[in-house]
Amino acid sequence: MQEVNIDTFENQYSGREYTISISVPEFTSVCPKTGQPDFGEIIINYVPDRLCIELKSLKFYMFSYRNQGIFYEHVVNKILDDLVEACQPIQMEVIGKFNPRGGISTTVTSSYRRK
Amino acid sequence: MQEVNIDTFENQYSGREYTISISVPEFTSVCPKTGQPDFGEIIINYVPDRLCIELKSLKFYMFSYRNQGIFYEHVVNKILDDLVEACQPIQMEVIGKFNPRGGISTTVTSSYRRK
Amino acid sequence: MQEVNIDTFENQYSGREYTISISVPEFTSVCPKTGQPDFGEIIINYVPDRLCIELKSLKFYMFSYRNQGIFYEHVVNKILDDLVEACQPIQMEVIGKFNPRGGISTTVTSSYRRK
Amino acid sequence: MQEVNIDTFENQYSGREYTISISVPEFTSVCPKTGQPDFGEIIINYVPDRLCIELKSLKFYMFSYRNQGIFYEHVVNKILDDLVEACQPIQMEVIGKFNPRGGISTTVTSSYRRK
Amino acid sequence: MQEVNIDTFENQYSGREYTISISVPEFTSVCPKTGQPDFGEIIINYVPDRLCIELKSLKFYMFSYRNQGIFYEHVVNKILDDLVEACQPIQMEVIGKFNPRGGISTTVTSSYRRK
Amino acid sequence: MQEVNIDTFENQYSGREYTISISVPEFTSVCPKTGQPDFGEIIINYVPDRLCIELKSLKFYMFSYRNQGIFYEHVVNKILDDLVEACQPIQMEVIGKFNPRGGISTTVTSSYRRK
Amino acid sequence: MQEVNIDTFENQYSGREYTISISVPEFTSVCPKTGQPDFGEIIINYVPDRLCIELKSLKFYMFSYRNQGIFYEHVVNKILDDLVEACQPIQMEVIGKFNPRGGISTTVTSSYRRK
Amino acid sequence: MQEVNIDTFENQYSGREYTISISVPEFTSVCPKTGQPDFGEIIINYVPDRLCIELKSLKFYMFSYRNQGIFYEHVVNKILDDLVEACQPIQMEVIGKFNPRGGISTTVTSSYRRK
Amino acid sequence: MQEVNIDTFENQYSGREYTISISVPEFTSVCPKTGQPDFGEIIINYVPDRLCIELKSLKFYMFSYRNQGIFYEHVVNKILDDLVEACQPIQMEVIGKFNPRGGISTTVTSSYRRK
Amino acid sequence: MQEVNIDTFENQYSGREYTISISVPEFTSVCPKTGQPDFGEIIINYVPDRLCIELKSLKFYMFSYRNQGIFYEHVVNKILDDLVEACQPIQMEVIGKFNPRGGISTTVTSSYRRK
Repeated sequence: MQEVNIDTFENQYSGREYTISISVPEFTSVCPKTGQPDFGEIIINYVPDRLCIELKSLKFYMFSYRNQGIFYEHVVNKILDDLVEACQPIQMEVIGKFNPRGGISTTVTSSYRRK
Repeated sequence: MQEVNIDTFENQYSGREYTISISVPEFTSVCPKTGQPDFGEIIINYVPDRLCIELKSLKFYMFSYRNQGIFYEHVVNKILDDLVEACQPIQMEVIGKFNPRGGISTTVTSSYRRK
Repeated sequence: MQEVNIDTFENQYSGREYTISISVPEFTSVCPKTGQPDFGEIIINYVPDRLCIELKSLKFYMFSYRNQGIFYEHVVNKILDDLVEACQPIQMEVIGKFNPRGGISTTVTSSYRRK
Repeated sequence: MQEVNIDTFENQYSGREYTISISVPEFTSVCPKTGQPDFGEIIINYVPDRLCIELKSLKFYMFSYRNQGIFYEHVVNKILDDLVEACQPIQMEVIGKFNPRGGISTTVTSSYRRK
Repeated sequence: MQEVNIDTFENQYSGREYTISISVPEFTSVCPKTGQPDFGEIIINYVPDRLCIELKSLKFYMFSYRNQGIFYEHVVNKILDDLVEACQPIQMEVIGKFNPRGGISTTVTSSYRRK
Repeated sequence: MQEVNIDTFENQYSGREYTISISVPEFTSVCPKTGQPDFGEIIINYVPDRLCIELKSLKFYMFSYRNQGIFYEHVVNKILDDLVEACQPIQMEVIGKFNPRGGISTTVTSSYRRK
Repeated sequence: MQEVNIDTFENQYSGREYTISISVPEFTSVCPKTGQPDFGEIIINYVPDRLCIELKSLKFYMFSYRNQGIFYEHVVNKILDDLVEACQPIQMEVIGKFNPRGGISTTVTSSYRRK
Repeated sequence: MQEVNIDTFENQYSGREYTISISVPEFTSVCPKTGQPDFGEIIINYVPDRLCIELKSLKFYMFSYRNQGIFYEHVVNKILDDLVEACQPIQMEVIGKFNPRGGISTTVTSSYRRK
Repeated sequence: MQEVNIDTFENQYSGREYTISISVPEFTSVCPKTGQPDFGEIIINYVPDRLCIELKSLKFYMFSYRNQGIFYEHVVNKILDDLVEACQPIQMEVIGKFNPRGGISTTVTSSYRRK
Repeated sequence: MQEVNIDTFENQYSGREYTISISVPEFTSVCPKTGQPDFGEIIINYVPDRLCIELKSLKFYMFSYRNQGIFYEHVVNKILDDLVEACQPIQMEVIGKFNPRGGISTTVTSSYRRK
């Protein structure tokens, strides 16, 4: 997996706690066991502090998983870690809703709150 | 962007805390980076104090963004600031749900509560 | 607007706090500014005390607005006042969801709670 | 209205508080004023104690209202009383959602909680 | 009913409380009274501790009910017990939504929280 | 089953072939085998000749099946026969969509065209 | 019922057969039997010849039925006659979908084709 | 697979061509390759001649596939053959809509028309 | 309105008649009477001959209506004329579905077929 | 793009014309202009002759487009050509519904019929 930078821009309303929700319904990665593609939607809800996530770089970051083998549970937590590191939010939640495999569908939800 | 007044009228039930929700599904502005149009829905929920927002002037206020370049995060917060100044509500929330660009859709929610 | 009585009947389970929700999706009145018809749905949620609202008289009460000019914000609060006076409930909420005009739709929610 | 027994069976997991929800979308009774049929859905949510409601007898219990004249508000409370008596639950809620009559639809919600 | 193992794998983010939701819409068992098939959806929401449920073994575990006679109320609680034993979660909820029989549909919800 | 008259009124536009569609979503009868209630929706599409079906008498005609035992296939054809006899239309179609029983739902469609 | 003119404007593409569909979901009139309001949606599909229907005058024409007593079957055919006379189209269809009364809903469809 | 009889009953309206549609949304069989369950909905549309399919025996016939290994394409054609043989209809169509496997879902449609 | 070129590219399968459907749900222009924005969706269905419409230039062509005053009926026919001229298709249909104004919504459908 | 074989199996009902529909909602390829991923659903409807398409090999065939640059119009026609060659059907239709890009979504439909 090549390195992809998540760019940010300055939050002009950083004194006010407000929420930004981003939906990425075209997420795809590869199952590390079978080598076959997985598909799903990634949803990101966060309260920015001084930095907002720049959407174009987020798109390329999401593309970087396209040919990478990774489990559902891990990819959601890894995206959370990467985005928290990139924009240092007050709080953030990442949800991954994955398409059914073998008749079973899975949703993973992980969140961060600054202490 | 030309100046547009947000008119108000007197709230006849100002002694009672009640909620007014306004949906503007035909909001459009211009992306400041690409110059291409953005589309979305603006939702305003507020508890009026002595003044209610007059809907026709609100419509023209929303039209004033039609050819203006502004980011999602900023336009929602600016609408909140302008409407709070215009009608001095007890509390107000502004939500902007923007159409997908590059497969990614964004919702921004900002709120005000009188101290 | 002719006077319309809202009839009530005795609540046989007045010792128990329970909720009655009534939806009137065929509400119509007239815009006091333009003289053109407004359309919407009125929803009434209440906890009765000793009296329940009789539905047939409620229907006629709602019909009485058909040719009356009144603003969204006022009609919801007026219905609340009239129904509270008629049945003296423990609590009541009236919601008016009005059809879009000029691409903008409005919902007004007002409530009463006995002290 | 003929007498109908609501059978119960022993709750094998009575030490754990869990919820059983039952939907009866084919409920019908008769309007006591007009003699015409009413239709609606009855929803029962309860936390069983030592007894669970047996579904086949519940079905026959619901059928027993088919030709009986009873008001919306009363039938929901009566079903609550009958079911509480039959299975002695920790808590129970009965919701009746009735089809529109004269353009008006009604929902009645009543609940019981053991003291 | 033959014995089926529910496999687990190590939770790489066990220091963080996050939620995994699994939907199994193709659940089928047999009514112990009539011998006829029942159909429904089983939903599992849990906060893992050190172990996550492996989905393929879960699928086979669910298949093991295919020809087994068991009541709605019992199957949901039994699945909860088996899964809690297998992965020792911080908390878990199991929901069974069963298809209508005789016009009546049932949902059973049971949950576990580590003390 | 008591006799119920289906009233008609004169079609003021009998020189023009047009269509009237009537939906009766609250139809109920009784299964002749089990004695248990059946539920469904009856849809009537017809091109009137000189007579239109009066809706209030149609409602009472539909009510007359409430406690009558009759099969799906027969009730749809019988309604078609009765309505054709009553209003002598140019053409008519009767559709009965019945609620699932034992996980199986049935729709019966029968039609008449004047020769 | 006061007289209302249906205005037209010149069809700039009268050499080409194309279709204009107009939906009026806020139609209301009065039942001539009971004096109570009826509600429904009127849909107009037509192929213009040299004249198109002007929408604002159509709106006022529809408002003119607001306090008029008229049957479903007649109002659809009368609207068809009035609109055909006003704009002399190549063909036209008028559909009236009326809200349920007594659990029964009705749709009337009438059409005109120039000979 | 044990033999299951599809019972029929006499069509009382055999002189009139009408249509019976039957939906079986709870169909399940076993994949002959993997041994894992398949799920789907079977829809049967037919014009009866002198015999109608009896629904209870149809239900048991459908249950007989529960533990049988058979491909999608074959099961739809086999059901068509069996039902045509049982009731000798004027025409019949069988549709099988199968749940996704590996992200791919399949529908098979086969029909018979008497010569 | 500034001039905008609609680019095309060579159809690699021009020997086969196939269909391309394009939906532009973010169309906006200005009402020539009131100067207020109109919103709608433009749908284009065509069978290409030797040229396909390039989507990026189509997007800019659609943007060119953003501040132009034009009637519904005219804009659909003008788009049809411009696109037919640009790509010389075997056949083409343009549909404009416009948002409600004054409670009335309009759809215009126009088509071209090469002689 | 690596070569992928589309396997087939013998059609046991080749004497009867019936239809097989296959939906692949997780199709993804790469835009040849921008290098960014495209997403869409591929639908295949065909009447088999002596060969049916084997679904697992079809899945791998679809995966082979994952990192290939190809236009919408071409990919649909290429899939049609490849599948026709593989299974020699009586007729086949391939539909590609692609996700919106820049607010514009596209559907391409191409078909083959044996002469």
